[in-house]
Amino acid sequence: MAKKKSEPVILVTNDDGYNAPGIRALVEAVKGLGKIVVVAPDKPQSGMGHAITIGQPLRLQKVSVFDGVEAYACSGTPVDCVKLSVDKVLHRKPDICISGVNHGANHSINVIYSGTMSAALEAAIESIPSIGFSLLDYRIEADFTAAKKNARIIVEKILKGKSFDKHLCLNVNIPAAEEKLIKGIKVCRQAYAKYEEKFDERRDPHGKKYYWLTGEFVNFDKGKDSDVWALKNNYVSVVPVQFDLTHYELKKKLEKQWK
Amino acid sequence: MAKKKSEPVILVTNDDGYNAPGIRALVEAVKGLGKIVVVAPDKPQSGMGHAITIGQPLRLQKVSVFDGVEAYACSGTPVDCVKLSVDKVLHRKPDICISGVNHGANHSINVIYSGTMSAALEAAIESIPSIGFSLLDYRIEADFTAAKKNARIIVEKILKGKSFDKHLCLNVNIPAAEEKLIKGIKVCRQAYAKYEEKFDERRDPHGKKYYWLTGEFVNFDKGKDSDVWALKNNYVSVVPVQFDLTHYELKKKLEKQWK
Repeated sequence: MAKKKSEPVILVTNDDGYNAPGIRALVEAVKGLGKIVVVAPDKPQSGMGHAITIGQPLRLQKVSVFDGVEAYACSGTPVDCVKLSVDKVLHRKPDICISGVNHGANHSINVIYSGTMSAALEAAIESIPSIGFSLLDYRIEADFTAAKKNARIIVEKILKGKSFDKHLCLNVNIPAAEEKLIKGIKVCRQAYAKYEEKFDERRDPHGKKYYWLTGEFVNFDKGKDSDVWALKNNYVSVVPVQFDLTHYELKKKLEKQWK
Repeated sequence: MAKKKSEPVILVTNDDGYNAPGIRALVEAVKGLGKIVVVAPDKPQSGMGHAITIGQPLRLQKVSVFDGVEAYACSGTPVDCVKLSVDKVLHRKPDICISGVNHGANHSINVIYSGTMSAALEAAIESIPSIGFSLLDYRIEADFTAAKKNARIIVEKILKGKSFDKHLCLNVNIPAAEEKLIKGIKVCRQAYAKYEEKFDERRDPHGKKYYWLTGEFVNFDKGKDSDVWALKNNYVSVVPVQFDLTHYELKKKLEKQWK
């Protein structure tokens, strides 16, 4: 199918790998909204954050798991996928980059560890409006019905809206609830929550110690405007995300104290 | 040496690996300011961003490259090093976490890709005041004299100051200049700058394509309050960094538009 002149180019990626059910759901969700191109990791890349591949080269392999959609598996991280697809697959910036649907929550502090959200944020750095989608159900057999419906609504909103910031990046999480129970879409801030790590210490057959990362998610945030609150109350949460990490309040304080 | 009751515990990590000259410089810089414990990656982890290790366990190996200082090499990422050291090495939160000295700049957008800064930010999430140090010289034989001097000044400031945010995280970059040419320390904001990627396409001996990430750093920021400006003018730049990625301005805008 030749690309129509007015048709937007939609880049789709994720961090669970090109063969995850979540990315198939996302491709289905946006069918008909533009020319879809998939460039996704060739293996799971959860928790890769904003990692890029410096010490070794990358590979791209054409794959045909998406019905009628041009798709590539990339040997790198989710951020690599975005960088490489702009330069070597699309040879231009897409009109939008969507990432996910992630199998598992990326609300609150997860935004920092998430490969799904880092891919979206990388696009935003490149002046490509972007959205990361995550479903609060990590299972392979998760039901993506509500995720698909809401992803399409939000992508349509962004493709229609012209007044947005060129660095727009949205962190969208969908509750693990039946579609009819979802109350709507809520614009939120990132909750202050974190993991309290407890490494599981074991010994290998040679008697040497090794450690598995485990931990408990703890929400310290009582606000009703946070993403964690929205999701608990069956809303789809939408947090606009930025890549300027400057802590401006602390900057003012330091400028005074360090004079 | 038994730990004195009042002596602060200083956790030192990096992303270039425990045997990099930069981390040895940082350990030397803070000698005498507290009980130093090093937990650093066992191999280079540059560009790992905020990656964590989920799919495999971690290893810790005692090493003795730092004269009289307890030190461990960890098989994981810089962020893993911080998490694991709190739970399994220190069995408490350190009083400060310092990361680096990185061989190469981590100003502006580099804060997002940098393993050095992600280790520091992870500590800040855990309510451990933290500082990442980077020298604008990537060479193994880089001269760390100015970096050491300024690192000690800044660590002392933070250890003495009691009024700081419990999530304090500083991104400190040191110009690649002779110590006497450095004009001082400047509190800054993160410059708006990014990489314009150009992947180097090659063919392997079997005729298959592969791609090396290369790119040009482009600074779009004309402000004189940015870290890039400060470094160009021979100041040590200090950017306070936060982990709340919410774009509050865009949040307000979206709330209105999506009503």
